[in-house]
Amino acid sequence: MNLDAAKAALSHLDLDVNPASIKAKSRDFFWYSPVLKARLDHVTADFVVTPRTEAEVIEVLKVCHAHDVPVTTRGTGTGNYGQAMPLAGGCVMHLHKMNRIKDIQPGRVIVEPGALLKDIDEACAPHQELRMYSSTWATATIGGFVAGGSGGVGSVRWGGLRDLGNIIRLRVVTMEAEPRVLDFTGEEIHRISHAYGTNGIITELEMPLAPAYDWVQIFVTLDDFAAANRMAYDLAAEDGILIKLATVFEAPIAQDYFQRVAPHVGTGQAVVALMVAPHAMGGFLTFLARHPAQIIYRSDSTKWDREPGQIFEYCWNHTTLRAMKVDTSITYLQVGYGSDDPLPLVEEVRARFSPEVLQHVEVTRSGGRVAMGGLSLVKFTTEDRLDEIIRQHEEMGALIFNPHRYTLEEGGRQTVDLRQLEFKREADPKGLLNPGKMIAWDDPDWAYDRMYAWPGLRKAAE
Amino acid sequence: MNLDAAKAALSHLDLDVNPASIKAKSRDFFWYSPVLKARLDHVTADFVVTPRTEAEVIEVLKVCHAHDVPVTTRGTGTGNYGQAMPLAGGCVMHLHKMNRIKDIQPGRVIVEPGALLKDIDEACAPHQELRMYSSTWATATIGGFVAGGSGGVGSVRWGGLRDLGNIIRLRVVTMEAEPRVLDFTGEEIHRISHAYGTNGIITELEMPLAPAYDWVQIFVTLDDFAAANRMAYDLAAEDGILIKLATVFEAPIAQDYFQRVAPHVGTGQAVVALMVAPHAMGGFLTFLARHPAQIIYRSDSTKWDREPGQIFEYCWNHTTLRAMKVDTSITYLQVGYGSDDPLPLVEEVRARFSPEVLQHVEVTRSGGRVAMGGLSLVKFTTEDRLDEIIRQHEEMGALIFNPHRYTLEEGGRQTVDLRQLEFKREADPKGLLNPGKMIAWDDPDWAYDRMYAWPGLRKAAE
Repeated sequence: MNLDAAKAALSHLDLDVNPASIKAKSRDFFWYSPVLKARLDHVTADFVVTPRTEAEVIEVLKVCHAHDVPVTTRGTGTGNYGQAMPLAGGCVMHLHKMNRIKDIQPGRVIVEPGALLKDIDEACAPHQELRMYSSTWATATIGGFVAGGSGGVGSVRWGGLRDLGNIIRLRVVTMEAEPRVLDFTGEEIHRISHAYGTNGIITELEMPLAPAYDWVQIFVTLDDFAAANRMAYDLAAEDGILIKLATVFEAPIAQDYFQRVAPHVGTGQAVVALMVAPHAMGGFLTFLARHPAQIIYRSDSTKWDREPGQIFEYCWNHTTLRAMKVDTSITYLQVGYGSDDPLPLVEEVRARFSPEVLQHVEVTRSGGRVAMGGLSLVKFTTEDRLDEIIRQHEEMGALIFNPHRYTLEEGGRQTVDLRQLEFKREADPKGLLNPGKMIAWDDPDWAYDRMYAWPGLRKAAE
Repeated sequence: MNLDAAKAALSHLDLDVNPASIKAKSRDFFWYSPVLKARLDHVTADFVVTPRTEAEVIEVLKVCHAHDVPVTTRGTGTGNYGQAMPLAGGCVMHLHKMNRIKDIQPGRVIVEPGALLKDIDEACAPHQELRMYSSTWATATIGGFVAGGSGGVGSVRWGGLRDLGNIIRLRVVTMEAEPRVLDFTGEEIHRISHAYGTNGIITELEMPLAPAYDWVQIFVTLDDFAAANRMAYDLAAEDGILIKLATVFEAPIAQDYFQRVAPHVGTGQAVVALMVAPHAMGGFLTFLARHPAQIIYRSDSTKWDREPGQIFEYCWNHTTLRAMKVDTSITYLQVGYGSDDPLPLVEEVRARFSPEVLQHVEVTRSGGRVAMGGLSLVKFTTEDRLDEIIRQHEEMGALIFNPHRYTLEEGGRQTVDLRQLEFKREADPKGLLNPGKMIAWDDPDWAYDRMYAWPGLRKAAE
């Protein structure tokens, strides 16, 4: 790694060599996990470059390739799996200023990776908006969402980013002596989506759009968690009632962690957060009247002294963030309960672990069916106990997407994605892109019997 | 029934007393069924009135109530269950000139019942369109669709008209000494939707809208019917691929009955008709490449010497219409295969009856899952054989919505809809609205052991 030569060659670009700001720009939201916090807190890049065009991205990749400098690419760093942590130091390439919204057509938008989800939605208004976004909508980039996310608000209608049709096209630059620019559609998209920038850098995205509505944001309470889950599941199964979000919180999540909501929720009550299209409110209210549920807030008519703000900022991983602000010992797990009949499994998991683990359930769609996933709140004690909780989840039949691991495989299904690996061989022959994040590249025979510790990770005292 | 007094009282309205045109205006598409044809061919009203405003509707109902004249209401008469046949004569009230499109907002439209589905869609363009419509889109009215239909093109995305959220509001006029005007929302909607105008007259509808796209219309061939069904089912389960129609035709439906399509289809091949959003074509083509399917037509690029026209006019009950034009002995059945795992049942039914019954399957959604319904083509021989075919369907676990019956109950689930019955008691105390169509009103103890024959049906020689 010849850092000085690389920096010199890139000095005409927007280059940051100030140690304090490099440190700040080298961190994402990995600290949601005490496990990652213990291992990655010292991680920092050697310099940060902020390209503004695809040509500049190509230049960065070419120069760093020539001088064997690792490149870790990031948007605004809102990921929770350490996706954007530069484990080996080197270059952090920050894409947030490559943020043009290039074209908006019926059903589709073409953007650069650094465009904020919020800015895209505002540009597509009033008729259209993104199909789905993370709860970090206000601050996250589309490139980061596609390279490091899996779904979010809107997945109750459209499924996840991995589902066919939810990404139309990705334009990718390789890290070779002469970087190539490739347009990926169809099956090729999944070489590069959710690959943490380990095998190519996304410089343009074509994303499908949904119709935009002035979504009514709603909080509902029910006395019983199982009834709340049932209601949310059945609502998502109503094909004629258009919703964008359905989230269920076991007590006392709202009572303890949602300061502005708590005064309106009774002891022991479960809370459901919803986004409903205005023209679906009639059907929704008819549906709700069949359930033992009370609306405590709807954004089109309720007036609280202290407004709750955007309701989706209580959901997905904002739930964890709010809990951590109150109780620093809280962390979380990402759980898949499946789509066949998830309710009994959710209840079984809750019964075994509550209150050490509190159920926060996101309703989604998968394979044409209503599915449920958890971003369960976990009262962290030790890594061993966390691993034991995970083991018991798996034993009960739940899938764990472990957010206490920084590799693609361990944060996913613990299986190698051959499409990603094969494309990395082609696009990043020196293995310089976001090193340490793909076990299949570094240690193909890894057995997943314990947490993977990448040998190339810089030592804290280095 | 004092016809002369009623006609005199209504003479300042658009009144038709010419026997030939009354006869023409007294018929719907009941003749799809040889059973209904044999029983209802002679049915005709005594006069036809065509109101243009709600006030005129009220006047018609009030006058006819005073003079004990039955009123059968119709749109353009494209129903197939004899919904609009005036069994007892009297007045046919034709609403096709009450066709204003009153207001279009994001997600909703307010219309009068006589507005054509096509005219509503054109008025809502370019951003919005109706969620669903019958294959008679070009000629059918929204009032007729809601009062006599169950779903159609778009139901693969939105479910059926009976699903919550697919009708927002219905405004209804009762037939009493002093007719009342009522606005129904929520649970009340289903008092009056799909009630054939037996318990009130719809004078205004508020319907939800979907985003409008320039749908790509596609024909696909597969060598195997079961594979075609599988493909259509799985496509509808792709939450990220936006489609509006998925229809499967067993061979030789397309070969024998679709003249412009037939030259492009091989012997024995199954055909699938699809409408796919333009921005979903990438995802769709990726999906399709995983199946043993060939695209023979797509409206955005294929050029046939003889264009097929609107693809949905091959689907739903246009399939039957096309078959009948070639073979007058064809009729059909409306079959529900369910949403749990419909494919084996479809195959079992096909294996037992083909080619006497040919499978035409519509993919829909029901309760949040992909469902399949059949508008199967039946080579008609005798009523006894038709009844036996129906009996065997039911024995195999399929639901039959019998289109060879003119009552609400027999064309539905053979059960009394108490909401409809109770509202009829309130809104039509003399039983003058579309008489003979609701068994529960006329013969509450009917056992459904044979076809119901309403005693009040006018004799042919009368």
